[in-house]
Amino acid sequence: MAKQIATNITWHEGHVERKDREDLLKQKGATIWFTGLSGSGKSTVAFTVEHALVERGHLAYVLDGDNIRHGLNKNVGFSPEDREENIRRIGEVAKLFADTGVLTFTSFISPYRKDRDQARKIHEEAGLPFIEVFVSAPLEVCEQRDPKGLYQKAREGKIPEFTGISAPYEEPLKPEIVLDVAKLSPQESAAEVINYLVERKLLRE
Amino acid sequence: MAKQIATNITWHEGHVERKDREDLLKQKGATIWFTGLSGSGKSTVAFTVEHALVERGHLAYVLDGDNIRHGLNKNVGFSPEDREENIRRIGEVAKLFADTGVLTFTSFISPYRKDRDQARKIHEEAGLPFIEVFVSAPLEVCEQRDPKGLYQKAREGKIPEFTGISAPYEEPLKPEIVLDVAKLSPQESAAEVINYLVERKLLRE
Repeated sequence: MAKQIATNITWHEGHVERKDREDLLKQKGATIWFTGLSGSGKSTVAFTVEHALVERGHLAYVLDGDNIRHGLNKNVGFSPEDREENIRRIGEVAKLFADTGVLTFTSFISPYRKDRDQARKIHEEAGLPFIEVFVSAPLEVCEQRDPKGLYQKAREGKIPEFTGISAPYEEPLKPEIVLDVAKLSPQESAAEVINYLVERKLLRE
Repeated sequence: MAKQIATNITWHEGHVERKDREDLLKQKGATIWFTGLSGSGKSTVAFTVEHALVERGHLAYVLDGDNIRHGLNKNVGFSPEDREENIRRIGEVAKLFADTGVLTFTSFISPYRKDRDQARKIHEEAGLPFIEVFVSAPLEVCEQRDPKGLYQKAREGKIPEFTGISAPYEEPLKPEIVLDVAKLSPQESAAEVINYLVERKLLRE
């Protein structure tokens, strides 16, 4: 059995190239980095895009609080230093995913411009597309939605350093995509993102 | 343009299931965890397997010192606590890769049994295969090979806490695969691993 399979295999030295995996997947690896206030709808849009892409035969994956904060980053908190380390690690993991050829979506508030710029830098140095998506919603809208009840707790002082209330949010200066979620439905926002990926030729048909 | 694409898309709520991505890739996501002394040949075998799998149309990726120690884990060292954190993060990232449907190879000495067992635990709790591969080679053989000149530096006291010399290596008690690299070529070792993946039905033809 072992020999039979082994004889069918062409053996190579060295590493597989990124292009080999991208050819296999018929897409380009990239990181699509969502940033915006809590409650702005980042994850809703990210998961809507992911679903549509997988339905069309593309490999997409969302990194978000659920799979990162309880795992890789369970030992980092919410101080400015810890937020920096949180985003640093997410940037590094997204880069590995993108290098694998995956269309990788990150859905984190990521409030500091310099932390997002650092994630961009390590991608661009590796020749990987980094697409910053600003999910733009007024604080009042996010606070009114408050899907997880976090704003209320922050106003009551039960959550320290809450972005928009007691910690800053720095808007992107030159994001690749701005989604005005006051005007767009999640599906319309998702379509904007997919159109952008098509225009950048990251998806081959 | 936006509307035209959007009307071709079926919109869904919620998350893509792991099975959806696995069906797309015609394989099961899994982590294949190589462990063994420095110089035992872990990376050579891992990259040989990766090449053969990608050639056969499977998505495989190797996490190793080159892409982890200079990126995600550049802020951890080699003390026992740091080694634990190093392996903890690698286990969490491998789990995310496996959840994406990728055949994920990790190539790290990973000397402590409890750290490897913790990586196994988080995979098994998530219903993901974790395949421990013990790359077995006598210390003398590894030290004689010394491909990176590390053993010599360790013997000269220039590298503290070097596994096998001044830090312990705990052999796996029940690894899924043992590769006796004194008897097997890298290609023969790679064939053993691929045969195991076939027998576990992780690769669909």
